[in-house]
Amino acid sequence: MDAKPPTAAILLIGNEILSGKVDDENARYLVRELRTLGVTVGRIEVVPDDQLDIADTVRALSERFDLVFTSGGIGPTHDDVTLPAIATAFNRAIVRRPELERLMREAFGDRLHPRDLRMADVPEGARLERGAATAATTWPVVVVENVWILPGVPAIFRRKFEAIREHFRTRPIHARIVYSRADESPIADALDAIVAAWPTVEVGSYPDADAPDYKVKITLDGRDRDAVEAATAALVDRLGAVVVRTA
Amino acid sequence: MDAKPPTAAILLIGNEILSGKVDDENARYLVRELRTLGVTVGRIEVVPDDQLDIADTVRALSERFDLVFTSGGIGPTHDDVTLPAIATAFNRAIVRRPELERLMREAFGDRLHPRDLRMADVPEGARLERGAATAATTWPVVVVENVWILPGVPAIFRRKFEAIREHFRTRPIHARIVYSRADESPIADALDAIVAAWPTVEVGSYPDADAPDYKVKITLDGRDRDAVEAATAALVDRLGAVVVRTA
Repeated sequence: MDAKPPTAAILLIGNEILSGKVDDENARYLVRELRTLGVTVGRIEVVPDDQLDIADTVRALSERFDLVFTSGGIGPTHDDVTLPAIATAFNRAIVRRPELERLMREAFGDRLHPRDLRMADVPEGARLERGAATAATTWPVVVVENVWILPGVPAIFRRKFEAIREHFRTRPIHARIVYSRADESPIADALDAIVAAWPTVEVGSYPDADAPDYKVKITLDGRDRDAVEAATAALVDRLGAVVVRTA
Repeated sequence: MDAKPPTAAILLIGNEILSGKVDDENARYLVRELRTLGVTVGRIEVVPDDQLDIADTVRALSERFDLVFTSGGIGPTHDDVTLPAIATAFNRAIVRRPELERLMREAFGDRLHPRDLRMADVPEGARLERGAATAATTWPVVVVENVWILPGVPAIFRRKFEAIREHFRTRPIHARIVYSRADESPIADALDAIVAAWPTVEVGSYPDADAPDYKVKITLDGRDRDAVEAATAALVDRLGAVVVRTA
C-alpha cells in the first residue's frame, strides 16, 4: 500500500561450496527468515574466495537491491578476503577498529594470536550492529552501506542473524496454495487468466511427480491479502473438479 | 600441461528457491559431478522467473565462463520463460523445431495439449544434444552457444545430465586433506607459506567446531598431482605435531 517492500540479495563467498566440499546451509536458512520478515530475496550468488570478484559482485548487488547479506570469508586465514573486498567495492580503506580490538583482547587474553586481529580490520566508516537484545560485549555484525557481513560457519551465521533480524521486518507476504490433480498443460490457460487479472499476486506452478494425490502445486503470494484471497477463489472456481485441496 | 581446464557457471531459475518454498538439489548435484569430471565451477546464481533478468544473466555468464548450465523454467506455464530469455540473450528468434514437435506427438498422441508444444519452441540454431548412449527418440538437451538448458525437476535434471556428462570430462583435480588440532590463527602463517610456494595448488581452510578430533580441515587441490603432493608434504612437515591425520 505505501512504500515498496525491501528487496534483498544473498552472497555466499567460498570455494568450498563451488567445489561441493560443503553444502550451503546459510542461504537456505536466510531465504526462509527473510520471507517470514516480509523481505523479497531477488538473487543468490555464490562466488569464490577472490577479492576482485567479490568486490565487483558486492558493488553490483548493493546498487540493485535494498539489502545485501554476505556469508563467509571473515576469518584469519589467507582465503578470508571478504572485508578487504568490500572495502574495495566501496572505495574505502581498511582500518583497525579499537572497539573490536578491545573486544578481542578481552575475550582471548593471552591466547590472542596476532593473526586474530585481522578480524578487527574493517572498512573505514563501517557500522557495528548488534540488535537491541544483545550485550555490548558481543561481537557485532559489521555493516558497510547496505551490506551486512555475516560469518560462514552456519551456527554463528544463525546466531548473528537472529540478533539483528528485527531490523528487517516489513509488511508480511500472504501465501495460499492450490493443489491440482491435472498436469500443468491443461491448467496453463487458467493460470494465465489469474496472472493477468491480479498483477500484484505472484503465481507459481510446480509439478511434483512423487506427490501422492496431486500433480501440480500452485502457489499464490502477495502483500495484498485481499488480492491473494480473491485470486485463489477465482482459480479454484476456474479449475473446478481439478482442485484436490487448498491450503 | 596443455590447455587451461574449462570453467563453468550454474544458473538456477525460479522464484521457488528464492522464497524458500523449494530447496535446491540441482546445483548441489551438479557441482559434485562437474568436479569429478575435472570442471571448475566459478559461480552459481539463483534468479527469479523474470525474462529480462535471466537474459542479462545468461549473456554475462556465457561471456565469462566456458560452460553455462541452466536449471528450470522450461515447462508449459506462464512462469516458464527460460527459452525465450535465452533467445533474447543471444539475439535469436524462437522457432518451433519440427524434430521436437514430432517427438512430442509420438510420445503423447491424443493426450497432447496445445500448450505442451511451447516446449518445442526453442532459440533459432540451437543444438539438440543427447549423448552417445541415448536413443534418438529421447527428448534432447537444448544447447545455445555454450549454454546447456536443463529442466528444474531434480530427477529429470539428473537423468539429462547423466546422458551428456562425458561431453565435459577433462583433466581431473587431485585433492588432499590435512586435519589440524590447532585453530586457524596459529596455523595461518604456515598456510600462507604453502600458498606462496605452490601457486597452482588451491588451499582451503575450514574450521569445524563440531568435529570430534580436529579444529580445522585444510584442503589442497590442483590439476598437477606432483605439486599437490609436494605441498601436502611440506604443510605436514611445517605443522608437525599439530597434524591429526591426512587423507
